Amino acid sequence: MGMRRKEGFIAVDWGTTNRRAWRLDRGGAVQAEMEDDRGIIAVAKGGFPAAAAEIRERLGDLPMLMAGMVGSNRGWVEAPYVPCPAGLSELASNLCRIDGQRAAVVPGVAFDAGGEADVMRGEEVQLLGAHAEGWIGGDATLCHPGTHNKWVRMAGGRIALFRTVMTGEIFNLLREHSILADLLAAPVEPGPAFDAGVRHGLERDDLTAELFSVRARALLGKAPRDEASAYVSGLLVGADLKVGLPLAGDGEIVVMGRPELTRLFSAALAIAARPAREVDGDVAFLAGVRHLAELLR
Amino acid sequence: MGMRRKEGFIAVDWGTTNRRAWRLDRGGAVQAEMEDDRGIIAVAKGGFPAAAAEIRERLGDLPMLMAGMVGSNRGWVEAPYVPCPAGLSELASNLCRIDGQRAAVVPGVAFDAGGEADVMRGEEVQLLGAHAEGWIGGDATLCHPGTHNKWVRMAGGRIALFRTVMTGEIFNLLREHSILADLLAAPVEPGPAFDAGVRHGLERDDLTAELFSVRARALLGKAPRDEASAYVSGLLVGADLKVGLPLAGDGEIVVMGRPELTRLFSAALAIAARPAREVDGDVAFLAGVRHLAELLR
Repeated sequence: MGMRRKEGFIAVDWGTTNRRAWRLDRGGAVQAEMEDDRGIIAVAKGGFPAAAAEIRERLGDLPMLMAGMVGSNRGWVEAPYVPCPAGLSELASNLCRIDGQRAAVVPGVAFDAGGEADVMRGEEVQLLGAHAEGWIGGDATLCHPGTHNKWVRMAGGRIALFRTVMTGEIFNLLREHSILADLLAAPVEPGPAFDAGVRHGLERDDLTAELFSVRARALLGKAPRDEASAYVSGLLVGADLKVGLPLAGDGEIVVMGRPELTRLFSAALAIAARPAREVDGDVAFLAGVRHLAELLR
Repeated sequence: MGMRRKEGFIAVDWGTTNRRAWRLDRGGAVQAEMEDDRGIIAVAKGGFPAAAAEIRERLGDLPMLMAGMVGSNRGWVEAPYVPCPAGLSELASNLCRIDGQRAAVVPGVAFDAGGEADVMRGEEVQLLGAHAEGWIGGDATLCHPGTHNKWVRMAGGRIALFRTVMTGEIFNLLREHSILADLLAAPVEPGPAFDAGVRHGLERDDLTAELFSVRARALLGKAPRDEASAYVSGLLVGADLKVGLPLAGDGEIVVMGRPELTRLFSAALAIAARPAREVDGDVAFLAGVRHLAELLR
């Protein structure tokens, strides 16, 4: 598709509820960017060509390289998953071209080993981009918080295995729709309440009961109501670490994603006495699309 | 309030989303009953006198004895919790009288011991009613599934301690609002998929990850989509048992509530090799209100 050959291209990280897009020049430098809430659930079936045209109106009439849920069965086109182990070259050679060859969707990655099965869409570009830049080693362990946190083991520069934990989505369900909703409106900040939740989540195995205890303690005046949000977030993150840490090696864990989430997971990993390093997910995404575009030259 | 003195009374189990009411004659026999979806969240603030009048229009202009969330801070009147240990006489002497003495709300029960705190509203009438009838022993262990499952230890005929698990609510949140929603529409039936979920929930400690695995296995064609609903229900029930069984004594566990739920928990307890006996919650509720009315004569 000749990306970067002439005047550059548009990279789109098109998720479930939001999308972000950047115009890159032929050298890979960002010239313009946009973000809005036109995630795939806000686009009607058949509405993707028009939704892509909105991006081109704002950023220029250029080829587009897209990743994320836009390649799912609810997106523009279903881009089949690439199996683990998956590196940038496997992604590049399985791009799904649409829109008269003027757009391409990066495939997701599937992990399928006996009874274990998992899928990702979007995170793979960030992880492999960061590796291609040398920011993470070829055998790194990663944690990628978001709606669905991904624990990922790389091997030889490729994604070898991973497991998804629904931490972000469960927190959002509780905040928006549960009996705890009125207790969870406060923003989550690191601090003693978050830490106490992390410790409970790491040490105990009673998540679906402890959630109700938060409500009972508030009703009986045994815990400050304004600490509930951070405590519940910590509780879910602690339970998440208990799933992810057995997959991790002994070394550093790279926490990649939006800074407001990576700092929470980083704080939780400190409680678990595990060294962690944060990497900005957007920066890693741009690295990933630049390297994919190189492979497509 | 002289219940049963003349022409009987109306007993109401008024919950969050539904309410059930029965007209009992002076001997305690059921003469008429009704059920509708006018739970407390469907009643506007200040709308409870009118909502009670609807019941009297259908069942008769009689005194009313009410239990459940109608006594919560979102209900008709907030009836303060009675602390554990709580028996029928503690409930009777802490009734909250309203409506010109023509109605009374049974208080909820609170458990408060150091860092442990819990609350119930409604289940206490069923448990203590069943005990008053001799259906369960004075030192029984109970499991009361519903939106919020309650594990209860009785001692000397009173509620001694209990813990709530949000099993039903979490399942409903997943079914109605999560990325698993389209997989969870099928009704939950006992069977191999439910049993497999129970075993996973009992043996493993990865609930928030295993939920996503259900989606991944469906996407990759590794598990039948129509088994997801029973499997996820079993998974949550297995995690629930892991919280409740350490509270239970060595003997029989009484499973009380709606028959479609007690049969699932009973099946799960069989997998955990624990003897269980089911008791219908409505029948126990009626026993409880009859005994309360006796104490109020």
